[in-house]
Amino acid sequence: MLTLVIGNKNLSSWSLRPWLLLRHFGIPFQEVGVLLDTPEFLAQIAPWTPNGRVPALRDGDLMVWDSLAICEYINERYLDGRGWPADIAVRAHARAAVAEMHSGFAALRKQCPMNMRRTPDDYCWDAAADADIARVQQLWRDLRAWHGQGGDFLCGEFGIVDAMFAPVVSRFLSYGVPMDDTAQAFANAIQALPAWQAWRADADAEVEALENPDHARA
Amino acid sequence: MLTLVIGNKNLSSWSLRPWLLLRHFGIPFQEVGVLLDTPEFLAQIAPWTPNGRVPALRDGDLMVWDSLAICEYINERYLDGRGWPADIAVRAHARAAVAEMHSGFAALRKQCPMNMRRTPDDYCWDAAADADIARVQQLWRDLRAWHGQGGDFLCGEFGIVDAMFAPVVSRFLSYGVPMDDTAQAFANAIQALPAWQAWRADADAEVEALENPDHARA
Ligand SMILES: N[C@@H](CCC(=O)N[C@@H](CS)C(=O)NCC(=O)O)C(=O)O
Ligand SMILES: N[C@@H](CCC(=O)N[C@@H](CS)C(=O)NCC(=O)O)C(=O)O
Repeated sequence: MLTLVIGNKNLSSWSLRPWLLLRHFGIPFQEVGVLLDTPEFLAQIAPWTPNGRVPALRDGDLMVWDSLAICEYINERYLDGRGWPADIAVRAHARAAVAEMHSGFAALRKQCPMNMRRTPDDYCWDAAADADIARVQQLWRDLRAWHGQGGDFLCGEFGIVDAMFAPVVSRFLSYGVPMDDTAQAFANAIQALPAWQAWRADADAEVEALENPDHARA
Repeated sequence: MLTLVIGNKNLSSWSLRPWLLLRHFGIPFQEVGVLLDTPEFLAQIAPWTPNGRVPALRDGDLMVWDSLAICEYINERYLDGRGWPADIAVRAHARAAVAEMHSGFAALRKQCPMNMRRTPDDYCWDAAADADIARVQQLWRDLRAWHGQGGDFLCGEFGIVDAMFAPVVSRFLSYGVPMDDTAQAFANAIQALPAWQAWRADADAEVEALENPDHARA
C-alpha cells in the first residue's frame, strides 16, 4: 500500500498536488497527516523523508520526496504515462508549465499562501504578485489555446499539469484574485473534480485553530 | 537542428544545466547567447520563450522552456531515457534530488550566485546558506551511498541529476565553500568532463565586464 505524508489540508499546497493525482486516478493509498508549524513537525516526518518537507511518498521500501518527483514516479509506476499528455510536444509544454510553477511565482506564493477556508476581503498584494498572477493566466490561456481541445483542463484531460496548478485556483478563489474567462473556466473544472471536493471537505473539517496565516507560507 | 538559448556562460547557472547534457551526450545543437542584465535581454529572448528567462530550447516549431523541462524533453526525444537512471526506484531518487535543486536552496543561490571566474576570498554567507550547503552535501552523500557504485557521478554514470547540480560545484569552488570527501570527489568528476571544460573555457573567454555580481543572481 502506498503512503502519502501530507500537511494540513487547509494550508499545504504542495501536499494537495500528488494527493489529487492519486485520488483522481483511483490509486489506493493511505495518508499520514502532520501539522505544519508545530514543534513536532520535523520529528514526525523524519522517518518519511530526508528533506524536512511534505509531501513525501512511501512505496514499500522506496521513499520519494518533493511533489513533482512524486507525480513523475506515480505516472511511471501506476499510470503507465497517463499523467502527462500522450504527444511528446504537448508533454514538453505541460512539463515546462509545471516546472515554472515548481520553481517560480514566489511573490504570489508568499503573499497569498494557500488557505482554503479563507474568504476574499480587502487584503492587498504587491506588483510582483500581480505580475505572477498575470503570467499564470497567460500560461493557462496558452495551454488551453494550444492543447485544450480534448477536455476542460489545461491540456485537455486532467493530468499532472492541472494537479500542479490546483493550489493556485484555491489562492485565486480565497483571495478574490480577478480571473479572466480561461482562468474562471479552469477554476470551475478543478472545483468540479470529486477528488478536489473530497480534499476540500477534509480541509473544512480540520479543527486546528489558524491564527491569520497570510504571508506565512510559501 | 536544435537551438539552445542561454545567458552569459560565466553567470547563467540554469543555462549550464541543459547545455552540459546536450554536449556530454554529443547531441548537435546551435547556441544563441543573450546577455543577462542588459536592456535588450527581454526583447532578445521574446521570440524563443514565453516566460522571460533562459534557458530555452527550440526544436523545429517546438519551444521548450525551463531547464528541467528541457532536460526531460532531451531525455525522451534524443536519449531514449539514458538521461535518468534505468531503474525506476533510482530514477525516483534522482528526480527527487533534482526537484529539490530546482525548487530550493534559495539562500545559497541568492548569496553565492554562479560566477565561474570568481576566486575565493573572505566573503561570508549566512546561516541559511550554510544550512543549504549542509543539505546539498548530505544529499550527495546519500545518492552516492545508495546508487553511486557504477561510476563517479551521483547515481553512477553522468546524467541529468549531475547536470542539475553542476552549477553548485561551480559555486562551491568559486566561493571556497568547505567540501566533504564526497563533494570533493563529485567536484573532481564534474571538472573532468570535457563538456564542463568546454563551457568553462567559453566562460573564461567572455569579455563582458562584471561589476561585482555577488548577491545579484539566484
Ligand atoms: N519543492 C517542494 C516544496 C515542499 C514544501 O515546501 N512543503 C511545505 C508545506 S506545503 C513544507 O513542508 N513546509 C514545512 C517547512 O518548511 O518547515 C515540493 O514540491 O514538494
Ligand atoms: N526555473 C527556471 C529558472 C531560469 C532562470 O531564472 N534563469 C535566469 C538566468 S540563470 C534568467 O533568465 N534570469 C533573467 C531574469 O530573471 O530577468 C529554469 O530552471 O530554467
